[in-house]
Amino acid sequence: MDLKNEDFTQHKHISQQFNTELLELKNHFLVMGGLVEQQVSDAVRALMNGDSGVAEEVRLRDREVDKLEMTIDEECVQVIARRQPAARDLRLVVSVAKMVNDLERIGDEAKKIAKIAINLAEEGQPPRGYVEVRHIANHVAQMVHQALNCFARLDAEMAVEIMREDYSVDSEYKSAMRSLVTFMMEDPRSISRILSVMWVLRALERIGDHARNLAEHVIYMVKGKDVRHTPMEKVEATVAGD
Amino acid sequence: MDLKNEDFTQHKHISQQFNTELLELKNHFLVMGGLVEQQVSDAVRALMNGDSGVAEEVRLRDREVDKLEMTIDEECVQVIARRQPAARDLRLVVSVAKMVNDLERIGDEAKKIAKIAINLAEEGQPPRGYVEVRHIANHVAQMVHQALNCFARLDAEMAVEIMREDYSVDSEYKSAMRSLVTFMMEDPRSISRILSVMWVLRALERIGDHARNLAEHVIYMVKGKDVRHTPMEKVEATVAGD
Repeated sequence: MDLKNEDFTQHKHISQQFNTELLELKNHFLVMGGLVEQQVSDAVRALMNGDSGVAEEVRLRDREVDKLEMTIDEECVQVIARRQPAARDLRLVVSVAKMVNDLERIGDEAKKIAKIAINLAEEGQPPRGYVEVRHIANHVAQMVHQALNCFARLDAEMAVEIMREDYSVDSEYKSAMRSLVTFMMEDPRSISRILSVMWVLRALERIGDHARNLAEHVIYMVKGKDVRHTPMEKVEATVAGD
Repeated sequence: MDLKNEDFTQHKHISQQFNTELLELKNHFLVMGGLVEQQVSDAVRALMNGDSGVAEEVRLRDREVDKLEMTIDEECVQVIARRQPAARDLRLVVSVAKMVNDLERIGDEAKKIAKIAINLAEEGQPPRGYVEVRHIANHVAQMVHQALNCFARLDAEMAVEIMREDYSVDSEYKSAMRSLVTFMMEDPRSISRILSVMWVLRALERIGDHARNLAEHVIYMVKGKDVRHTPMEKVEATVAGD
């Protein structure tokens, strides 16, 4: 991922050291993001292939995600305390402190999927609903990837795209859930296994929400406008303007 | 809720104005907390009584919660930019910026419960599982209330209690979910309604998690130690020590 970006070269900071610290913070965030992306794709792969080994690795690796969250949070507080950043720099640091929580949550959802993968692998025979899982999983994995890219490039237009994607994930999720309810009614003996698939879908849908949160923070960093809880037309106008 | 606390009177700030700003920030956070508490209790009451009117109010009032989140977030950034707080004050401001997200999420879960209440009220005849819902709802509502109290008083010992409570909520939740799966198997025609009750339980369990997050932040503010992702014995030692 490209860490150079215009913002940092155009902007003149009082000290070169401060500049380096901000770059490091961004860099650590992207490292954590890369790990979390991997966790999601491994968890889904483990589920699809009934591979408990991979699922177990995801569970264990969640501790690394947690540690990174705590490290980056501490770095944010340190940077504020030592450097007293203002304006755009301050928005960057405060946003990272908040976004790191979204990354940790994504990691947590991946861990949940991995746990379910382990239980389902024991039972053999994949339950119905895997087509839907694969589809939504690809969709949200792409959103997370794009969210990290748009953070690295501070690209507000791409952030708007991600926010839009979240709407289509939500409708895919609802339609998948309806299918699963039908499967349950058709075959009540499969209730418990299909419930597990529902929890996986729910986790994926939440991952999409967190990718959207990341995108909203990128818009805040770049434009200085808080676009949470805002209708899409307004968000588009905010990003298109100035 | 008592807003005076020793921290603010003992601590000498450079300016009285800064002191006032911090108190205001805390106060706004508690106002938002009070609103969110009300949302949770109204949503659960609406569900229990099949009262769509109350549920509709909860849905609409969620916008106020969202607005407060954005206002308080902005206040945090302003306080950091203007006052450059250090040490304990900085921890307070950064923690509030993070905790406000937990409050917003609790509000969001209350809104989800309200939506389900509306759907179930239309169908008449309450589904099974309401005993479990009532029990867990009381438990997590109490946790949220205590979390706000322990923030107001900066009481780290109470925060540890709340963290412990979250473990019992999790086990109550798991046991309730098992009962609901059994109900579904016994009567497949009720699958869809019981699923709704499962989503309510899930929302309540998440509210418990957020109360726990609030408690963890209080410990961070008071003790300067990040106790997330830490075993309970270590947390207890941290709070007992110093």
